[in-house]
Amino acid sequence: MSVRLLHPSIQNGIRAGDSEHAGGMLTCKCSDRPVKVNVSGGIAHNHACGCTKCWKPEGAAFSVVAVAPSENVSVAENGDKLAVVDPSALIQRHACSACGTHMFGPVEREHAFQGLSFIHPELLDGNWPEPGFAAFVSSVIEGGVDPSEMEGIRTKLKDLGLEPYDCLSPALMDYLATWAAKKSGVLRQ
Amino acid sequence: MSVRLLHPSIQNGIRAGDSEHAGGMLTCKCSDRPVKVNVSGGIAHNHACGCTKCWKPEGAAFSVVAVAPSENVSVAENGDKLAVVDPSALIQRHACSACGTHMFGPVEREHAFQGLSFIHPELLDGNWPEPGFAAFVSSVIEGGVDPSEMEGIRTKLKDLGLEPYDCLSPALMDYLATWAAKKSGVLRQ
Repeated sequence: MSVRLLHPSIQNGIRAGDSEHAGGMLTCKCSDRPVKVNVSGGIAHNHACGCTKCWKPEGAAFSVVAVAPSENVSVAENGDKLAVVDPSALIQRHACSACGTHMFGPVEREHAFQGLSFIHPELLDGNWPEPGFAAFVSSVIEGGVDPSEMEGIRTKLKDLGLEPYDCLSPALMDYLATWAAKKSGVLRQ
Repeated sequence: MSVRLLHPSIQNGIRAGDSEHAGGMLTCKCSDRPVKVNVSGGIAHNHACGCTKCWKPEGAAFSVVAVAPSENVSVAENGDKLAVVDPSALIQRHACSACGTHMFGPVEREHAFQGLSFIHPELLDGNWPEPGFAAFVSSVIEGGVDPSEMEGIRTKLKDLGLEPYDCLSPALMDYLATWAAKKSGVLRQ
């Protein structure tokens, strides 16, 4: 069955990435004065994401997104073009105001993900670790995917080795719940 | 591996329920003047739930909860003992103020689940359809389960035939997303 474009980097199979990579330069889509953001170390938790807020390449139903420690993420060139998409959001997505590409999204408020920045590894020069799962899959409906396509989409994600979840992966959901349980005092710090 | 009590009705295997059942009487745990609530038709989407708000029997990590159309749910006896647990919650859980048992929880505000009431089928006389999946599994950590137990809990749920999800099932998550997409205008009504 033909399945709509999920993401250009996964549609025709996932190439094993470079698990030893150590960051690189993120570059936006502008030909004139592109924004460049340096990631000075490894990225983690790379995954496909169907949420409506993540930046996606033209025509794609999913983004591909990972995290890096915010201390490793710094604007290298043309930072004057950056603007925060939604200042009220947990993830402060900094986008190029010319081409719209999301360059990095730090989590600054008190949260299990505080101190991490979300980045789109396809914008990196060089290689990067492949995605490991698919998150917020049902949310693509809110982005305009017809509900009748969902069975085909979940089947294709599984075939690609990207287990589909309608929230985050169990490991990350347990991590979030553990953080909440420590904060509430149910679990010891 | 020994796994803590998930729920008395599932811990030692799930008995096939009565898919033809047509409701029954919910009764709270009081020996004196028990609250009785009549469900005059079938229930649907019965599942185990790990969220911290659902009522659980003593010592259980999960509730077992289903829905019925609110129009089929009516207080039969001793309704004066009922009180809403949290008036600000989406689900208006009506609990017996003497024994604490949650008797029914209607969704009254505008929501995909508006018009449905959440009930705990173990309180019904007679038989009822067996649960079909497990929802909000990671949330049991917020209820005090140690994160180290999660692998064993998910394995046991799968062995029981209750696929574990950290939100609702894909069918229900798609249903929620479809409702949201219609409300926002992304999908046609």
